[in-house]
Amino acid sequence: MIEKLNKAFCKLPGVGSKSAQRFIYHLLERDRQGGLELSEALAETMKKVKNCERCRTLSEKTLCSICANNARDGSQLCIVETPTDIHVIEQSGVYSGKYFVLSGYLSPIDGIGAAELGLDELENLLKNEKVNEIILATNATIEGEVTAHYIYNLAKKYQIKTTRIAHGIPLGGELEYTDINTIAHALSGRKSYDI
Amino acid sequence: MIEKLNKAFCKLPGVGSKSAQRFIYHLLERDRQGGLELSEALAETMKKVKNCERCRTLSEKTLCSICANNARDGSQLCIVETPTDIHVIEQSGVYSGKYFVLSGYLSPIDGIGAAELGLDELENLLKNEKVNEIILATNATIEGEVTAHYIYNLAKKYQIKTTRIAHGIPLGGELEYTDINTIAHALSGRKSYDI
Repeated sequence: MIEKLNKAFCKLPGVGSKSAQRFIYHLLERDRQGGLELSEALAETMKKVKNCERCRTLSEKTLCSICANNARDGSQLCIVETPTDIHVIEQSGVYSGKYFVLSGYLSPIDGIGAAELGLDELENLLKNEKVNEIILATNATIEGEVTAHYIYNLAKKYQIKTTRIAHGIPLGGELEYTDINTIAHALSGRKSYDI
Repeated sequence: MIEKLNKAFCKLPGVGSKSAQRFIYHLLERDRQGGLELSEALAETMKKVKNCERCRTLSEKTLCSICANNARDGSQLCIVETPTDIHVIEQSGVYSGKYFVLSGYLSPIDGIGAAELGLDELENLLKNEKVNEIILATNATIEGEVTAHYIYNLAKKYQIKTTRIAHGIPLGGELEYTDINTIAHALSGRKSYDI
């Protein structure tokens, strides 16, 4: 029984057999109630959380809280790779538009094409809603760039302005410890210094 | 719902809100079945795993597999602080006696006295079974040493030979990187070098 639970814990990212054992003994010896609560919360979440019909993020309702919020600016559409990315952007507190979540990134070699990404839904959304700006916030990886480029072409078809979030030296970062690709990106993406 | 699950995950040792979020998104996006299995395994384990009546380790049955195994040498009794310690000693493969698990270590300041540790059960066990040697395998901490000393006095009452597992430089360890307390222990605990 404990071995079965150990294996189930090992399916979580970054959890190996030793950590799983620590979790199990901790729960059994000090917090059985916590273990039962975790079990219930897990079952409930796995069964009830679906995808938002409009932006495809994870949501308990048909429309997620951001899509359902009319105070948010529907003319801006930020495109991200995962629901976690929305969470991070929301924490930054500078964006008040809406989102669209891809199912990862274009990667034909893994069998992930335009349909799997949800680009058809994105196109429908662009047809039905009045979007003035698409902000591409896919990751700064090769796949993320390819995906961004693909969506840029799609947006061009509907004559929608497209922007890409800036890439460069992170705040508080030192040049000495920054990798060369980031430095190259930061240099080529330099802006005029106006006060 | 996701926040509730996040909080429940955070009760696991070493898991914070960020790791919990990674777990949840991973399960929701890639492995819902795994999440449900984890939930079931957790509930089952929390409800059914009890303590072994003889050695107090965690067990699904009244007697754990080691206590119920007559092939094991009942005349040796190894005393450890937690069920995990049994697991580690079993993996070393050099011990074939039986065990007794304390509930941690003596720590009057935290309200853990002899009764809370299960020393009454240990005394009953010593009265009822024929134990020739008690091996003290409590941790090499101040509390572990105090606990070991306490049990040593108890064993003396029943005239049972008591030994303590050796403390010293770990195998593969280098003197240069070993802390001074361990070196002091290793020196004072030196043995004659016989080939």
